[in-house]
Amino acid sequence: MTAPSHSRRRVAVAGASGRMGRMLIEAIRQSDDCVLAGALDVASSPAVGTDATAFLGHASGVQITADLHAGLKNVDVLIDFTRPEGTMSHLAVCEELGVQMVIGTTGLSEAQKARLSEGAAKISIVFAPNMSVGVNVALKLLEMAARAMNDDGYDIEIIEAHHKHKIDAPSGTALKMGEVIARAQGTHLADRAVYERYGETGARKAGTIGFATVRGGDIVGDHTVLFCSEGERIEIAHKSSSRAGYVRGSLRAVGYLADKKNGMFDMFDVLKLND
Amino acid sequence: MTAPSHSRRRVAVAGASGRMGRMLIEAIRQSDDCVLAGALDVASSPAVGTDATAFLGHASGVQITADLHAGLKNVDVLIDFTRPEGTMSHLAVCEELGVQMVIGTTGLSEAQKARLSEGAAKISIVFAPNMSVGVNVALKLLEMAARAMNDDGYDIEIIEAHHKHKIDAPSGTALKMGEVIARAQGTHLADRAVYERYGETGARKAGTIGFATVRGGDIVGDHTVLFCSEGERIEIAHKSSSRAGYVRGSLRAVGYLADKKNGMFDMFDVLKLND
Amino acid sequence: MTAPSHSRRRVAVAGASGRMGRMLIEAIRQSDDCVLAGALDVASSPAVGTDATAFLGHASGVQITADLHAGLKNVDVLIDFTRPEGTMSHLAVCEELGVQMVIGTTGLSEAQKARLSEGAAKISIVFAPNMSVGVNVALKLLEMAARAMNDDGYDIEIIEAHHKHKIDAPSGTALKMGEVIARAQGTHLADRAVYERYGETGARKAGTIGFATVRGGDIVGDHTVLFCSEGERIEIAHKSSSRAGYVRGSLRAVGYLADKKNGMFDMFDVLKLND
Amino acid sequence: MTAPSHSRRRVAVAGASGRMGRMLIEAIRQSDDCVLAGALDVASSPAVGTDATAFLGHASGVQITADLHAGLKNVDVLIDFTRPEGTMSHLAVCEELGVQMVIGTTGLSEAQKARLSEGAAKISIVFAPNMSVGVNVALKLLEMAARAMNDDGYDIEIIEAHHKHKIDAPSGTALKMGEVIARAQGTHLADRAVYERYGETGARKAGTIGFATVRGGDIVGDHTVLFCSEGERIEIAHKSSSRAGYVRGSLRAVGYLADKKNGMFDMFDVLKLND
Repeated sequence: MTAPSHSRRRVAVAGASGRMGRMLIEAIRQSDDCVLAGALDVASSPAVGTDATAFLGHASGVQITADLHAGLKNVDVLIDFTRPEGTMSHLAVCEELGVQMVIGTTGLSEAQKARLSEGAAKISIVFAPNMSVGVNVALKLLEMAARAMNDDGYDIEIIEAHHKHKIDAPSGTALKMGEVIARAQGTHLADRAVYERYGETGARKAGTIGFATVRGGDIVGDHTVLFCSEGERIEIAHKSSSRAGYVRGSLRAVGYLADKKNGMFDMFDVLKLND
Repeated sequence: MTAPSHSRRRVAVAGASGRMGRMLIEAIRQSDDCVLAGALDVASSPAVGTDATAFLGHASGVQITADLHAGLKNVDVLIDFTRPEGTMSHLAVCEELGVQMVIGTTGLSEAQKARLSEGAAKISIVFAPNMSVGVNVALKLLEMAARAMNDDGYDIEIIEAHHKHKIDAPSGTALKMGEVIARAQGTHLADRAVYERYGETGARKAGTIGFATVRGGDIVGDHTVLFCSEGERIEIAHKSSSRAGYVRGSLRAVGYLADKKNGMFDMFDVLKLND
Repeated sequence: MTAPSHSRRRVAVAGASGRMGRMLIEAIRQSDDCVLAGALDVASSPAVGTDATAFLGHASGVQITADLHAGLKNVDVLIDFTRPEGTMSHLAVCEELGVQMVIGTTGLSEAQKARLSEGAAKISIVFAPNMSVGVNVALKLLEMAARAMNDDGYDIEIIEAHHKHKIDAPSGTALKMGEVIARAQGTHLADRAVYERYGETGARKAGTIGFATVRGGDIVGDHTVLFCSEGERIEIAHKSSSRAGYVRGSLRAVGYLADKKNGMFDMFDVLKLND
Repeated sequence: MTAPSHSRRRVAVAGASGRMGRMLIEAIRQSDDCVLAGALDVASSPAVGTDATAFLGHASGVQITADLHAGLKNVDVLIDFTRPEGTMSHLAVCEELGVQMVIGTTGLSEAQKARLSEGAAKISIVFAPNMSVGVNVALKLLEMAARAMNDDGYDIEIIEAHHKHKIDAPSGTALKMGEVIARAQGTHLADRAVYERYGETGARKAGTIGFATVRGGDIVGDHTVLFCSEGERIEIAHKSSSRAGYVRGSLRAVGYLADKKNGMFDMFDVLKLND
C-alpha cells in the first residue's frame, strides 16, 4: 500500500504553546492540506509533555516536546516564529533530517542570515519577516503604482495608525512601504522622507514622501498610501484586524515548498508576485 | 402699492470682482430669498463701472462701484469677505445707513473686533471667521462628542489633509477642532497637543490629542477626528470639495438677520447650534 | 460594622459560560468598581457547578449555578445578555430580592417589555438593545447632525460593512441610525429609505436616505453616515473591532444604577446624552 | 534654419468651446511640450470665428473653425472628446492629412470601432473611453491584486460614490473594475456580480463580487475596491476631484504618439502598464 499522491503535508510548529504557535496549530487542524505532526517548545515550558491541542479542548496525539529530533522525526516542514537562537538550533536539526522550514522569526543578525542561506543549499526554506499575504501583496501593488506614477505630478503620502501601546513611529511596515516606493522610482527613501510637519512648513516640496502617524485605542495596524495629483488620487491601503494573515501566509508557504528540493524563498515567491 | 410680505432681501457684495465675490453674486442670483442690490470694489479695480454679473454673460443692472454710499443705498445687508481695513470702512457706512453685515473677513485685530462690537449696538452683524455650514456643524458635533467621551478610555486624534501649496501645519481648522474638544473637556489644548511623532516616541500618553498632517495634490481640505477606545472608535469628518460651503453659509446668515434689529451673532447662532 | 461608603458593586452575570458572559466576567475581575458575586447559567449547561473564572485559569470562589435564588443572594446588580424567557425569569427573582438589572437581551415582545416596565416600579433597570458606548454616542451625534442639516441641501447616505456571515441587510444598527435621523427631522424612515440602486435609477430624489451594504471577511461592524452637500460633506462613523464596547457599556450601566432606587433607564441616561 | 529637434507638438482640439475642450486648451497653453495649433467646433456653434482662448482673457491667434481641412492644416495631433459621428468625420480628414488622433469619445458602435482600426493602418491613434491616468493605473493595480488574491479567502467588494445627478448604478467605471477583476481570475463578472442586498440575503456567497452605490452632493467620483479576508483587508481606491485627470491623460497620449507612425493604442500603452 502506498501513500496517496496528494497526501497532506506533515507540519511541526515551534513555540507551540505561545500565542502565535497556538494560532498556527488551530489553523493546521482546520486545513485540508496539512496535518499536525510535531510540536516544539523550550524545555522550561510547562506545556512540554502535554498534548499540543489541549487548549482547543481535544487531543491530537501530538505531544509538545523540547527534543528536536523526536519532534521533527515524521515531519515534512517546520513553521518557526520564535527567536533567532531557537531558529538556529532548529535549522541544524532540519538540515540533518531533511525537514523544510517556514521562518517568520525577526531580528536575525547578518551572520545568522548567512547561516540560513547555507542551510538553503540542503533544504528548502521560506524566510520572510512579514508573512502576511496582504502586506506582501500591498508592497507589490505599491511597487507597481510607484512605477506608473513616477513624476512630480504625484505627491506620495503614507499614513499609518496603530494602537496606543506602540512605542515607535513610523511603523516598520510604513517605512518598508516607503523604501519599496523610493526604490521602484530609482531613488532612496532617505533622500525623500518627511517625518514631521509642524508650524511654518512652507509648501510641500516636490518629490518628498510624507509620513503621518496616528496612535489610539486597539487599532491592530492600518497603512494607507496616497498618490495625489491634480484632479484625482489613488489610495492603496492595508488594514489588519488580527494575526490571522500571518497564519494564512505561513500555510501558503508550507504548500509552496511541497515540490522544492532546496533553495531560499520569500513571500513574493510564495505568492507569485515576482512574475 | 405695498411690498410683498415675503419680499426678498436686498444684498450687496463687497469685493465683487474677486473669486469669492463672484461666487456670492452667482449664488444670490440663483436664490429665491435674495436679490442683488449692490456691488462694491476698490477704486483701483478695473471692474468698477461694469455690470456685476457680466462674468456670467448677462446683465443685472447693478454696477460695481467704489462709492460706498451709492453702492449701499438700497441695500438690506452687505456680505463682506475682504480685508480688515476694507471691512472697517464698510462698517462705518453700514452703521450710517442702517445696513446689516455678514462678515467673513479674517485677520482682524482686537481693536478692530472691538469696533465691530460697537457697531453691533446699532446694526445687526454676523461675524464668523469660517462661514461654512459644515465646519460649524462639525465643531458642534465635536463639542458634544468630547463631552460624551470624556475619560481616559478614549484616545483623540485629529488628521487633516490639504493641497501641496499649504504652508503651515496643522491647519487653523484642525487647531480650532482641538480647542473645541479640549475646552468641552474642561482642559486646554496647549496642555494636551502632540504635533509630531518620530522615532522612539514611547507609548501614547493618556489624555493627549494627536495631530497628523497630510499634504498633496489639490485636496481642498479634509479633517477627521478619531475617538478610539478598546473595541470601537467614532470618527467625525468634514471634507471640502469647493468654497460653495462658505457661500451657502453666508446666505443663511443673510436670512438669519432678517428680523434682528441689532447685535453680534456667529454661525452657531445662525445654524441654531447653541440650542 | 457598616460597609465602606465607596464599596465595590457586587455583580452577577447571567449566561456565565457563554461568550458574552465570559467577557463580562473577565472585565468585572479587572474593574476596581465591581466584584463578581454571582454567576448564572441554564441547568443543562455543563458549566454549572464549576468555578466561574475557571476559563481564566484561576478560581474566584463563585460557582456557576442554575438556582436563581442562590445565585442572586448577595448581589447588587445582575447583567443579563441572554434570551427573552431567561430574562423574564431573572426579573421575577430580582424583584423579589431587590437586585438591580442591566439588560442587553434583544427580541423582547411588547408584552415582555411591559412586564419590564412593571418591574421597574420596584427595582432600577437599564434596558438597551445596544449597550455599546460608541454606538449610543454615534446615535446622539446623528440626531444633532440631522437637526442642524435639515434641508434639501443635504443628501443623507448610510453605508454599513459587516463580515461575510451576516444574513440580513441593512444591519439593525444602520436602520436604527436611519430612524434616529428621520425622527430628528420630523419624518418617518419608511417614507425616505432607498435600500437598493441598480440600473436606470434616475437622479437621486431629494429627501431620500440611501443605504449601501458591504459584506466581506471578518469585519466586525462599520457604519458611516454621510451628509453631502455642494462643496462639502460631513461623515459620522462608528467602527467596531470587538465586543469590548458592549462590555464597557454594561459596566457603566452598573455604576449608573448605584444610587437609583427604581425606574427604567437606557444608555442615553447612563451616558448623560439626554442633557 | 531648421526646427529644433525637440520642437513642441502642434495640437488641435475638437469641441473647442465645450467644457472639456476649454480645459484641454488651457492645459495645452500651460504645457512646455505642446502648442495650440487648431480648434474645431460644429458650424452651429456661436464660438466659430472667435479666438480659441478668448475665454481665458487673451488671444492665441488660433480661431475656432468648422472647416476641418483648415483647422487641421498645420497640426500634428487632434484631441477629440466629442460624439461618435463627429469623431468619424475627423478621422477621415486626419487620415487624409496624416494627423494623429487622441480619442476619448464614448459610445462608438462596433462598426465605428472597426472604422477606427482601419484608420490606424495609416495614422497612429490612442483610443480610450477613460483617459484618466489614475483610473487606468487603478485598473492595472486591480488586475494584479485580483491575480494575487485569487481564492475563496478573499471577498471582493466594489463601492462607488457619485453626485446626486447621476442616473444609473453602478457607474461604468465600477463595472469596468469588476470586469477587470473577474477576467484576471479567469471568470466572468456576470457569473459573480451581486448588485443589490436587502432583507434576508443569507450569508455572503463565496466568489461573488458585491457592488454598493452611494449618491449625494457633488461627489465627482470615488471608487473603492475591498479584498477582505480573515484578519486583514486591502483597499484600492480612486477618487476624482475634477476632470483634470482626463486632460492630463490626453496630453500624455499626445506625447506618446510622437514617434508612432501608425497603429492603435490605449492608455495601458501610453502609461506603459502592459510591461
